[in-house]
Amino acid sequence: MKFYDRLINESAPGAQQAVPATTNVPSAEYPRVYADGRVTFRVRLPGAKSVRLEGGQGLCSSPVTMTKDQDYWTTTLAPVVMGFHYYWFNVDGIVMNDPGSQTFYGHGRQTSGIEIPDPQLISSDLVTAPVIPFYAPHAGPQGQLHEHWYKSKITGDWRRCYVYTPPAYFEAESAAARYPVLYLQHGAGEDETGWVRQGGVNFIMDNVILGNVSSFFAIGPATVKAKEMLVVMGNGYATYADAGVRNADPSEAYLRPDSKAFGAVLTQELIPFIDRTYRTVANRDGRAMAGLSMGGSQTMAVALTHRDLFSHIGTFSGAQFSTPAAAQSAGQATPPFDPKTSYGGALANAEDFNRNIRLLWMGAGTAESALNNALRENADKLRAAGIKLTEYHTPGTAHEWQTWRLCLNKFAPLLFQA
Amino acid sequence: MKFYDRLINESAPGAQQAVPATTNVPSAEYPRVYADGRVTFRVRLPGAKSVRLEGGQGLCSSPVTMTKDQDYWTTTLAPVVMGFHYYWFNVDGIVMNDPGSQTFYGHGRQTSGIEIPDPQLISSDLVTAPVIPFYAPHAGPQGQLHEHWYKSKITGDWRRCYVYTPPAYFEAESAAARYPVLYLQHGAGEDETGWVRQGGVNFIMDNVILGNVSSFFAIGPATVKAKEMLVVMGNGYATYADAGVRNADPSEAYLRPDSKAFGAVLTQELIPFIDRTYRTVANRDGRAMAGLSMGGSQTMAVALTHRDLFSHIGTFSGAQFSTPAAAQSAGQATPPFDPKTSYGGALANAEDFNRNIRLLWMGAGTAESALNNALRENADKLRAAGIKLTEYHTPGTAHEWQTWRLCLNKFAPLLFQA
Repeated sequence: MKFYDRLINESAPGAQQAVPATTNVPSAEYPRVYADGRVTFRVRLPGAKSVRLEGGQGLCSSPVTMTKDQDYWTTTLAPVVMGFHYYWFNVDGIVMNDPGSQTFYGHGRQTSGIEIPDPQLISSDLVTAPVIPFYAPHAGPQGQLHEHWYKSKITGDWRRCYVYTPPAYFEAESAAARYPVLYLQHGAGEDETGWVRQGGVNFIMDNVILGNVSSFFAIGPATVKAKEMLVVMGNGYATYADAGVRNADPSEAYLRPDSKAFGAVLTQELIPFIDRTYRTVANRDGRAMAGLSMGGSQTMAVALTHRDLFSHIGTFSGAQFSTPAAAQSAGQATPPFDPKTSYGGALANAEDFNRNIRLLWMGAGTAESALNNALRENADKLRAAGIKLTEYHTPGTAHEWQTWRLCLNKFAPLLFQA
Repeated sequence: MKFYDRLINESAPGAQQAVPATTNVPSAEYPRVYADGRVTFRVRLPGAKSVRLEGGQGLCSSPVTMTKDQDYWTTTLAPVVMGFHYYWFNVDGIVMNDPGSQTFYGHGRQTSGIEIPDPQLISSDLVTAPVIPFYAPHAGPQGQLHEHWYKSKITGDWRRCYVYTPPAYFEAESAAARYPVLYLQHGAGEDETGWVRQGGVNFIMDNVILGNVSSFFAIGPATVKAKEMLVVMGNGYATYADAGVRNADPSEAYLRPDSKAFGAVLTQELIPFIDRTYRTVANRDGRAMAGLSMGGSQTMAVALTHRDLFSHIGTFSGAQFSTPAAAQSAGQATPPFDPKTSYGGALANAEDFNRNIRLLWMGAGTAESALNNALRENADKLRAAGIKLTEYHTPGTAHEWQTWRLCLNKFAPLLFQA
């Protein structure tokens, strides 16, 4: 419960003071974060022979050997990239989570995670006027998150989705208002909890809708506010009920022949469910789709082939832009991206595409070099083919959640604008 | 995503067939549950010298030594108590979670958990007419769960709460309807996610509201339906903003002198927030409070001293009914429960109490013998003092979630009835 409180208040005092990470369980003193971005990990493992810290690229790009100090193993990392990182310990070859951390569904399992605050947030001269990050709650009206379960005829499953409603949705004066909807997907090895728990989607959306732009990462002038909209987050894995495969490796499921089940669930079941349950603008003008990594691939695959359903499209570190070499080494038969032929020729007629799709937005982090370079290369191809798009590169962030938070922060204010 | 699907469909085929537990992460084959309630655990730990399985009382009351088979450690338990159990592995003295399991916040940390289906559910003669447990989704209208964040002036924190709304709440014909509210608390070492993730609160409430009583655990005849109501689940830990204690051991926090902060947050901040945000019956006639274990103690402490705010009270394995000996061994100065003096004399005048409190409901599991015996003993004391109460003992379940699910299943239909 102290998560955002600590992030905002306790991390301010000064560069030499370390505070428990905001992602710790309530009573855990470690990991601790310094104001300059250093982090100390500490775990009690009296019988271990060797302990290594492993995790996200922005935290430690290779395993870090920890040092034994009586019953505890510790390490302090030099300042690391701000934002959220998955991590875990490798104890004598065994992967285990940090008992001091909350867990987050990533890598196809529950892993520890750590939030590294914005260095501007915790610099000492900001104590009297703290900067609140764009992915934390501000004072003022709050949106809500809703959890739904629905039975899918396509997969035979009970499926869960989360829905964000903006602050005004339940106000009396909005009783007749209808809202556009962004369908927002997670990455491979993650699930529909990702944007809620790791992403802070409700705070990002509140802040761009209310125009709370005190963070240096905010979009342009304070007058650029996002339209009020719903955000729907479904599960990106789906297999047909009769496929006979119930426990397919989730990180491979979207590459399977039956991965079309995901698009079928989204377009034939989830969208009708949302349009039935909420006051939506229930047509393509009021519908956007975006996703990160695998979810970016799925967005291109589904939205480009359902242009009757979507008018705005976004990919954040979209995995469809793997280079052909990377695709080959991953065992994918994906041919190189070609605006003329890919996605059933959806991009072949630029004039038609530009008239129909009001926004094609593509982002990646500069520190995820393969995907970032692929984005530059393929954006050039698209522009050469006459396709209008918005390209964005988040500075210094890798294939991690800070990239995707920033992408949503930049993307959302461009949606559904006249 | 296959959680309830597997629970309902895949566990049916027969007693000799084992299926992955519904609480596993998507691709994990272990732990596996047999139709007769046996469970096989299996984990890859090539370098370990000894591995023990530890967990909830209904799963294994003492640690179970696992057997090495090449790189894997396994054990198969004789049929265990149905319901949800926390568990973990003790690997050469180190506690670690099962990478194959989802995690659940309990014991003050994220732990593995396993759902053991109702043995009636998975007996082979029910394949053609499966029994759906009262804590799983049925076909038909579904309620919703809502997540809110609110800033507490009392604690200085951003706090999270979950709200369940019944199926009809958002229907057009209910636009003017107001709903009573049950405030429902978690136990020590747990948080506001407990009733949602471990408890299945939304499914329990949907089923009692809709009268889906196909399970043999259902309340009485199918015509006994619970009133439509909201359920609000806040965090049970609170310290005053100026207390200077930010990381108190959460399992002890409620015994601290400043534990009154919890009652202050609930009565002065959470209730007004809910009454402002939802269409509630905003008076004592429309308000109930209940909780499990520590939350049962908190319910007694808060509701009995705020009878102007609550008219219905429930405790599930309420920890206030520890025996004096148990309290002493836990270092608690709690005097023995005395209807004449405890809770500021709230129960001293039975006639007055019975007129004001429309339901005092107390439950415990027969397999949690200390609490269960204390409940019998103290219920006798209360009846001898002229206090009307409803006493319930769940057969064969311990200090675990199946007891509390059953308590809610029995308690909810008695609320707010004329």
